[in-house]
Amino acid sequence: MAKMSSPTETERCIESLIAVFQRYAGKDGNSCKLSKTEFLTFMNTELAAFTKNQKDPGVLDRMMKKLDTNSDGQLDFQEFLNLIGGLAIACHDSFLRSTHFQKI
Amino acid sequence: MAKMSSPTETERCIESLIAVFQRYAGKDGNSCKLSKTEFLTFMNTELAAFTKNQKDPGVLDRMMKKLDTNSDGQLDFQEFLNLIGGLAIACHDSFLRSTHFQKI
Repeated sequence: MAKMSSPTETERCIESLIAVFQRYAGKDGNSCKLSKTEFLTFMNTELAAFTKNQKDPGVLDRMMKKLDTNSDGQLDFQEFLNLIGGLAIACHDSFLRSTHFQKI
Repeated sequence: MAKMSSPTETERCIESLIAVFQRYAGKDGNSCKLSKTEFLTFMNTELAAFTKNQKDPGVLDRMMKKLDTNSDGQLDFQEFLNLIGGLAIACHDSFLRSTHFQKI
């Protein structure tokens, strides 16, 4: 990332993912992992457009359990990226479906 | 993503990942997949800081083969996200090591 010219969109994106993770993971305890509380703060702040439409109060609990693949009660950076990747794929699929329907 | 207030950093990042993928995947053939040529264009444009430091000319070929998990000669969005995730984890680990060394 260290170079004189301005970063590309992909580089900015990678930097953002690391910065956001560290911002929320650094709020309490182990600053390399998102605790349950940090995960909820992240979801309700960064992805409020998603969480506020959830009628089921248990959805974030179940997401945390599913993402926490090593079951240590926290999310490391890899587990956090799986969440971002999953959301990106859902948005991308939804975009593809909407453009498909526009065509037919 | 559709809301009146400005997007959060995480939402912008997810939008960027989709936009960048579609920009390069749309250059030729199947616009939902990165062909080998599109992958090389993406790497040499968006991640030039990484590729220009590679002495080995075969590194991009091997990356493409490794990322192409279903071996169809192209990268779909999931396979593309594995690349971004891998790079983000490498950058994050390198950051953690550098802060660790600063502490000792």
